[in-house]
Amino acid sequence: MKWQWQVLGAVCGGALLLGAGILLGHFAVPQAGGGRDPPNWLQDASRDLDEKLIQDFMGQVDSARIRENLRVLASRPHLATTPGDKALVQLLRQRWQDPQTGLDGVAEGTYDVFLSFPDPTHPNSVAVVLNGSRLFEARRSEKVLTPDQAQEDVVPPYAAYAPSGSPQGRLVFAHQGTRSDYETLVGLGLDLNGTIAIVRYGGAGRATKAVVGAEFGVAGLIVYTDPKDINDGRAGENDTYPNSWHLPPSGVERGSYTESFGDLLTPYYPAKEFTYRINESEIQGIPPIPTQPIGFEDARTLICSLAGPEAPAAWQGALGCTYCIGPGFRMDGQFPSSSEVQVSVYNQRVIEKSANVMGFIRGSQEPDRYVLYGNHRDSWVHGAVDPGSGTAVMLEITRVLGKMLKEGTWRPRRSIIFGSWGAEEFGLIGSTEYTEEFSSKLQARSVAYINVDISVFANATLRGQGTPPAQSVIFTAAKQVPAPGSGTGSVYDNWRHHTNRSSPAYGVVPSLGSLGAGSDYASFIHYLGITSMDLAYTYDRSQTSARIYPAYHTAFDTFDYTDRFIDPGFTSHQAVARTAGNVLLRLADSLVLPLNVSDYGEALEGLYSVAAEGQVQADLAAHNISLAPLKAAIDQFKAIASDFNQRVMKLKEESSPNPLEVRMVNDQIMLLERAFLDPRAFPSKYYYSHVLWTPRAAGVPTFPGLAEAHAARDWDAVRKHLSIATQAVESAASTLEPPA
Amino acid sequence: MKWQWQVLGAVCGGALLLGAGILLGHFAVPQAGGGRDPPNWLQDASRDLDEKLIQDFMGQVDSARIRENLRVLASRPHLATTPGDKALVQLLRQRWQDPQTGLDGVAEGTYDVFLSFPDPTHPNSVAVVLNGSRLFEARRSEKVLTPDQAQEDVVPPYAAYAPSGSPQGRLVFAHQGTRSDYETLVGLGLDLNGTIAIVRYGGAGRATKAVVGAEFGVAGLIVYTDPKDINDGRAGENDTYPNSWHLPPSGVERGSYTESFGDLLTPYYPAKEFTYRINESEIQGIPPIPTQPIGFEDARTLICSLAGPEAPAAWQGALGCTYCIGPGFRMDGQFPSSSEVQVSVYNQRVIEKSANVMGFIRGSQEPDRYVLYGNHRDSWVHGAVDPGSGTAVMLEITRVLGKMLKEGTWRPRRSIIFGSWGAEEFGLIGSTEYTEEFSSKLQARSVAYINVDISVFANATLRGQGTPPAQSVIFTAAKQVPAPGSGTGSVYDNWRHHTNRSSPAYGVVPSLGSLGAGSDYASFIHYLGITSMDLAYTYDRSQTSARIYPAYHTAFDTFDYTDRFIDPGFTSHQAVARTAGNVLLRLADSLVLPLNVSDYGEALEGLYSVAAEGQVQADLAAHNISLAPLKAAIDQFKAIASDFNQRVMKLKEESSPNPLEVRMVNDQIMLLERAFLDPRAFPSKYYYSHVLWTPRAAGVPTFPGLAEAHAARDWDAVRKHLSIATQAVESAASTLEPPA
Repeated sequence: MKWQWQVLGAVCGGALLLGAGILLGHFAVPQAGGGRDPPNWLQDASRDLDEKLIQDFMGQVDSARIRENLRVLASRPHLATTPGDKALVQLLRQRWQDPQTGLDGVAEGTYDVFLSFPDPTHPNSVAVVLNGSRLFEARRSEKVLTPDQAQEDVVPPYAAYAPSGSPQGRLVFAHQGTRSDYETLVGLGLDLNGTIAIVRYGGAGRATKAVVGAEFGVAGLIVYTDPKDINDGRAGENDTYPNSWHLPPSGVERGSYTESFGDLLTPYYPAKEFTYRINESEIQGIPPIPTQPIGFEDARTLICSLAGPEAPAAWQGALGCTYCIGPGFRMDGQFPSSSEVQVSVYNQRVIEKSANVMGFIRGSQEPDRYVLYGNHRDSWVHGAVDPGSGTAVMLEITRVLGKMLKEGTWRPRRSIIFGSWGAEEFGLIGSTEYTEEFSSKLQARSVAYINVDISVFANATLRGQGTPPAQSVIFTAAKQVPAPGSGTGSVYDNWRHHTNRSSPAYGVVPSLGSLGAGSDYASFIHYLGITSMDLAYTYDRSQTSARIYPAYHTAFDTFDYTDRFIDPGFTSHQAVARTAGNVLLRLADSLVLPLNVSDYGEALEGLYSVAAEGQVQADLAAHNISLAPLKAAIDQFKAIASDFNQRVMKLKEESSPNPLEVRMVNDQIMLLERAFLDPRAFPSKYYYSHVLWTPRAAGVPTFPGLAEAHAARDWDAVRKHLSIATQAVESAASTLEPPA
Repeated sequence: MKWQWQVLGAVCGGALLLGAGILLGHFAVPQAGGGRDPPNWLQDASRDLDEKLIQDFMGQVDSARIRENLRVLASRPHLATTPGDKALVQLLRQRWQDPQTGLDGVAEGTYDVFLSFPDPTHPNSVAVVLNGSRLFEARRSEKVLTPDQAQEDVVPPYAAYAPSGSPQGRLVFAHQGTRSDYETLVGLGLDLNGTIAIVRYGGAGRATKAVVGAEFGVAGLIVYTDPKDINDGRAGENDTYPNSWHLPPSGVERGSYTESFGDLLTPYYPAKEFTYRINESEIQGIPPIPTQPIGFEDARTLICSLAGPEAPAAWQGALGCTYCIGPGFRMDGQFPSSSEVQVSVYNQRVIEKSANVMGFIRGSQEPDRYVLYGNHRDSWVHGAVDPGSGTAVMLEITRVLGKMLKEGTWRPRRSIIFGSWGAEEFGLIGSTEYTEEFSSKLQARSVAYINVDISVFANATLRGQGTPPAQSVIFTAAKQVPAPGSGTGSVYDNWRHHTNRSSPAYGVVPSLGSLGAGSDYASFIHYLGITSMDLAYTYDRSQTSARIYPAYHTAFDTFDYTDRFIDPGFTSHQAVARTAGNVLLRLADSLVLPLNVSDYGEALEGLYSVAAEGQVQADLAAHNISLAPLKAAIDQFKAIASDFNQRVMKLKEESSPNPLEVRMVNDQIMLLERAFLDPRAFPSKYYYSHVLWTPRAAGVPTFPGLAEAHAARDWDAVRKHLSIATQAVESAASTLEPPA
């Protein structure tokens, strides 16, 4: 029927026309929202983290490549600014510029830094002398137990920054060289003036042993590592490397003998060519007396011959004799009793160019927000563990990320900056100069700093250190990484099994340690107030009481040592690389920063509760000092942080949140840590301005200013530091309030 | 023909269907960008300033309302924390909470601040005494010339913070009480020990006259205003208020006698109840000796009777006699020559609650970016000019903005914070405590601070002060405001006519002054590094050499004084309100901040050129000190700033720029000023940390640290300050580099 066909034709034609119209209207007519199409950046601006990409990343982290990285990195000594160090600068540059696996850019930041080296032509020595003849001399270098120790450029053991000089005197044993140790000797009737003191590592900082000793009249200092402190007592050659991971009798811990960090001539300023330098005589906190470290084999020769009364029981060590305190040698010992000990130091102080190698990945959406990741490059000798284990991990992380970048499968939301710091071993110099040079923009733009220095001390468990906001992201990452070794749990489970605490908010969780000044995070957290963290695999403390891994800062910290004893198979290295890389990706890619501000409430409560209990509380009450304002500030902080988290939660639920709103809460999260800074809180401590985490000499684990003032019984200072802490907490709370 | 109708019908129907389809396709089918409609915030996020709205704003600024504001504000004395001040707190709150013209929110921030008041029961006095009898006494209060001076609560003249005491001694005339003035007297053979010195205002800060005088042994100080310095020499009653704007013979300038600013007991910390306070004895920079100001009528009585040699020609004033230096009175004068002068001061130091009233307008797009606008509220007496003229302007600005807000015709992109500061007259206390309490978030979020204290000194020309980035926005605004009075030019044209300089970049432009510490901008710029500016109408310097408007800090600074002499018709007030409001709107609403970073390049070049020429250059060369690193840093800054401006220009041309990109450049602009801060540059100067604008005692207009070190011939300090300046410029340059 013709009309039916006509109708059908009209319907079909109409449908076609309608459809064409729909297509035209949809694609060809500009849309009403702003009278235009959504701009290209719209989707990217509110894109969140891709969990699949994180899994991909972790899957690609390769233990064999980390092992190979370490083999190359530790193939020769690379003391700061020496040829070995310079070669590694080139290696870093080349890796980060690789066309297949490199980053967006590489730069070198060089500083003219104040260093201290032994004189190659006048070796330092420790000798027993009598009437001008040398009856005994300590080894000038470690025994050659593997080919590594025989390489050229193995720096002989020395105490960096110790002054030159050849004092000679009767020997005394001063335990760890703490103030109370020297006081004990004086209390036992010893006159320390003009003596040479032998002390063991531990208990006080390296420089402090000499600084305090000099106050007591000590003329020269010898430092050694007691096998009790490092080897769980083992001291024989059969029990030590290369037969086990323990320190051989000839091993000597080198180190920087400084009480502060950063370039010593340019505090607070980058050590550029134009930078004003203080006089060497104005440097605080370096040994005023010649100081030299020796191995325990030689220490045994000296200590086991000492005269005088027995040292206190707590001072006894594992040298296999009863330690006496001196002064001088006993009649029936190895040396004539009138023998003296001479410490000869010929260290030279020099200014050398040290480089940081910086690698950059440009952020796609917020290039002006930085996630920083760093480790030092310089070592004392081969530095396989310190810092090679960390650098090997960093290079594997950058390889995988660089590959994703070059393949076009990934670009982070925020910028990532990798730092290979120079001259850390001399006092965190490279990282400190970097924070000084760019303090203004780093404070404004840095989301967090991740430090992985020694990545594997041992194979037992993760060790996480950081400020409270770092906890959440570290936990999230650690839950996604399988623990190395046998068993099926995650790195998180294993960590919680080894070190845990009971959190009011979360129940039993792994213990996140706090950050002292042990590595390059120090200036980031203490000077700039950038949320920082440090990740490593470490000991089972029920298995060893070693101060640190035994080959630390010796010529035995080699690839062979790591490969055979520290982490055969490199699975702990791999676990750290996965965990740290996971943290890095979360910080760089999450739409809302994965740092939980309310975890600061729990930390504040913890610091407060120590002050509000026991002796501190009783002493404050006795001096009519109220904790109420501090308590009120903490309560207010907790309430405001909780409200803040509610707002963040709501924002996360929006399908297309305004990027400026997201940026606003991220800025609040990022800058929270800065609000705890008070550059006037600790005027006598260079760089330290974090009111909560500045290291405290006092034992009570509460606000550091309060703890120290309380320990000093200085009630005016207690009042002042309570005021400082209260203001810091109020300032931090106000940072989290709705901005308008 | 039927088929023709069918075809027509089909065509029409088809067209209808096609049209319907287009409509459906356009409106009903979700768009492809992200698979959804553009979100609501999209248009607002990249909306720029509305010039029409600025014109509307300026059109609504009403001189009659400003006049009425001032009448109310100056209706009674409102010395800080007194009932008059408290009444104004309520007035401000009520205005800013008005349902038709109020802001989004109001808050009061109170601080417990250290103040100093005369004792109502023991009036201070300055007397000539002989053998215990008082031969003459200076007026204890100003003469009642209009009803205002008779109001209760007119505080008698006093020197705030001067200590109590009644020293008596022979009178000497010490000119302005500068160090060189006292040295001149000693050079002329005078023994200043135990003397009472009379000095005039000017030449040195109020407190400094007493601090330095005490070093020379002066026991008590009298301060007066010489008619030469304030009245262009006029001293008679017929020539002075209420017959002209000149200071009457009984008028006395009150003032805060402090060398630093902020609450004196809580430097660097907000004066909260819990805040630690230093001891009063630890306060630096307040008079160590009793000090009292008097009027020039009484000063004439004292000075014109002095014995001794004639004072140097430069010391002579307009009291109508030859000034001699003393000591004591001459034989043929008004007093027996053995008469002495006694200064009796009974000032009381107290801690009182002082309030800042804060008004808030929430930003629509960037609520976490603050444009701050403030003025103090407290006065010495009625404070019609100081600060009433500024508060009257602020209230008119907030009325017009509040109206637009309540009518829904406007909401700024960024938040606006208005501050009515308390206790400014005692040393910028309210604003300083505010910056201390919120230092962390103010530094992170503040775009700029606009200060309008005294808005009209006189009717001649705009006076703009500020740091270089403020120049562009002030110029833009001033070009849009017609100059008050006769003539057709703009405020800008008139300003350029009165005060100008030749800019390498722009040719002849008005001179933007630099910021000292004369008003509440001090802590914003010097302590926090927030780009700040101060706007006022002021004198034609070819017409008067007055130090300041004559009724300054006296009981004659009244509404009547303003209404009849300072700004009849209030057109200068209106011009300032329009200019400041225009600046405020531009800072709050512009998509890209209207602060030109490259103007810092010109300023740096200017500071540098002074050091690179003449005596400074010669002295540096003689001591082998190179300016090359500083020069290189400045050249680099200029190049980077120029590149930055190019990038900003390109961004502005985009039709729908990514809000995160806009925010990025805005953050760079905002934080540039912060990069010039160095809290360690001037350790002896409380709060001052801006390396470029810290006030310098030395005359050479170059980098302040360099200028002072050079003046002190301290070449080591010169080296240090050159290093500090170079690092600050490098830091600032690096802030403007592409962030990644």
